[in-house]
Amino acid sequence: MEGGDGPYSYTQNSEYQKQSLDSAKQLTNELIDQHLDVGNHPYSLSNSYRVADFGCSVGPNTFCAVHNIIEAVENKYKSQKMESRTPEFHVFFNDHVGNDFNTLFRNIPATGRYFAAGVPGSFHGRLLPSSTLHFAHCSTALHWLSKIPKEVTDKNSPAWNKGRIHYAGAAKGVKDAYSTQFAKDFDSFLSARAQELVPGGLMVLVSLGFPDGVQVCESSMGENFNILGSCFLDIAKTGIITQEMVDSFNLPFYYPWPSELKSLIDVNGLFEIKKIEKLVAPTRQVKPDLAVCVLHLRAILGELIKKHFGEGITDILFKRHTKKYVESPIVSDGRYFKETSYFVFLKRKMNCAS
Amino acid sequence: MEGGDGPYSYTQNSEYQKQSLDSAKQLTNELIDQHLDVGNHPYSLSNSYRVADFGCSVGPNTFCAVHNIIEAVENKYKSQKMESRTPEFHVFFNDHVGNDFNTLFRNIPATGRYFAAGVPGSFHGRLLPSSTLHFAHCSTALHWLSKIPKEVTDKNSPAWNKGRIHYAGAAKGVKDAYSTQFAKDFDSFLSARAQELVPGGLMVLVSLGFPDGVQVCESSMGENFNILGSCFLDIAKTGIITQEMVDSFNLPFYYPWPSELKSLIDVNGLFEIKKIEKLVAPTRQVKPDLAVCVLHLRAILGELIKKHFGEGITDILFKRHTKKYVESPIVSDGRYFKETSYFVFLKRKMNCAS
Repeated sequence: MEGGDGPYSYTQNSEYQKQSLDSAKQLTNELIDQHLDVGNHPYSLSNSYRVADFGCSVGPNTFCAVHNIIEAVENKYKSQKMESRTPEFHVFFNDHVGNDFNTLFRNIPATGRYFAAGVPGSFHGRLLPSSTLHFAHCSTALHWLSKIPKEVTDKNSPAWNKGRIHYAGAAKGVKDAYSTQFAKDFDSFLSARAQELVPGGLMVLVSLGFPDGVQVCESSMGENFNILGSCFLDIAKTGIITQEMVDSFNLPFYYPWPSELKSLIDVNGLFEIKKIEKLVAPTRQVKPDLAVCVLHLRAILGELIKKHFGEGITDILFKRHTKKYVESPIVSDGRYFKETSYFVFLKRKMNCAS
Repeated sequence: MEGGDGPYSYTQNSEYQKQSLDSAKQLTNELIDQHLDVGNHPYSLSNSYRVADFGCSVGPNTFCAVHNIIEAVENKYKSQKMESRTPEFHVFFNDHVGNDFNTLFRNIPATGRYFAAGVPGSFHGRLLPSSTLHFAHCSTALHWLSKIPKEVTDKNSPAWNKGRIHYAGAAKGVKDAYSTQFAKDFDSFLSARAQELVPGGLMVLVSLGFPDGVQVCESSMGENFNILGSCFLDIAKTGIITQEMVDSFNLPFYYPWPSELKSLIDVNGLFEIKKIEKLVAPTRQVKPDLAVCVLHLRAILGELIKKHFGEGITDILFKRHTKKYVESPIVSDGRYFKETSYFVFLKRKMNCAS
């Protein structure tokens, strides 16, 4: 991270993340206070409270999130004058098996406040035994789809996404296919967590998305994906990659509306919704460092691109992308929407089959 | 691993490990059948059975051990006609934070037979919440001391281990210091596990050691450490390292007698000893591949040596060691003892303070 307080510093440019985090922290604290049944762990007489972060990456955000949850649970015990019955905390850090758990483990703060474990595997499936988890957390990870919907790469489908790498700006069929895949994945996620959580267990989701009705192509992110898509097409024209390779490449990200989240949680039926709220927007907007934005995009997409196109094209691609990006209106035009974080607080229903 | 059935093949040269493993498997199966209280998990109503392997490394031995334990527990449920109540298994793989958990996680067999988690940290301390573990396993890891006892590197102590790198063949005070450190470490291990295990929980230890009364200097391993020590002294004479560096370097390994283990478990007082038994020795002895033996030693000691002496000397050291090793009597002389594996089966006492 860039130090100091200059225009490129992390201090100046992480306002958005920091405010989101603070805002989520405050909400989590309030809602744990309202909805946690202290001293009532019917599924564990051993007095340990199990917290899992799904899609944790390597830190430090996961440690902040876990710290906030533990603090809120401890506060509830204190406020109920049950401090002596405060449980021991067992924290499960989950991410894909390809995540760098070695780095994650080295980064775990040595506070002794909890026992830590790493859990490798996809959060679209089961990762923990039934009814053993008390609190599930998942922040800015649910937009990753488990796979690209088939129709999108099927030449004979009306949802074939020829010449594009995302549903942003694509035909309606493409967005529908993405949206259907997200619905399946989110339902799998909810059902797996419902089995793992004790009845009455709590869950916080922070989901990247856009306000109801806003299309991803109206956002700076959607426009950025379109610029990147056009760079792939440019490179295909030079013969380094084929048009077919571009047609069959799609980014596995879906950004749901809050109304979609609500409706999918209702259909799943295993959780009560206690809160869905937009996290506060930053109070000051600093002009983004373009190089950092491009590096950030490359960090996220680099592996996906290498896997599909091979090692060769990443440098050429991002050189071309940077050139187009700095000239695009999204850098200066305030009309483009930015993705928003939605905070969702759920409680596992007490009496329902999972 | 070397394939086929030739003189250097793994098939021919892993008889010892394989027979130890088979022998431990059979004992574990019998003793779980005798001592597991099925359907009686007072500390978990969620019907999950938690197994931890302490000092797991990256596999595959840890997966075999865990597989054997799970199979034995399942068999017990079957034999009691309680198959429908067979619990879900949650397996915790523990090793130091420096262990390569990324490799471990990639190696976990995709059987779906258990939920897996990695637990980074020293097994001399607490790693899991109180009374949450049902079965603890630790194989060929307890001989690693948590640290070198101070006296051994103290010039003013009668236990100063000048010119040697291990207690093998050293003054009695040196062995006593190692033995005292092992007693402390083993007691910490037992006390931590006693807190983590549910009352009545089970534990298998496989400990490297020697028969009662046999000194490590009478063994091929002890003699090998002495050869290595003499190589360090040779290099010190060339001026590449100092004599002080050799004097302050000691290998953190202690090989207890079975009578020592028994006595330390009794003093700790938190476990009932159900069995201490020597694991079967190999039925056929294939002349060891010297290059493999040296590589094996280098693999185990390389990091310790680099940490103390820096990157430079490992190549020189092991070239010199190989030369002395092939000329030493331990390669051909059958009078040298080999280290032995002892199998220990313990049950956490039901009613005692931890």
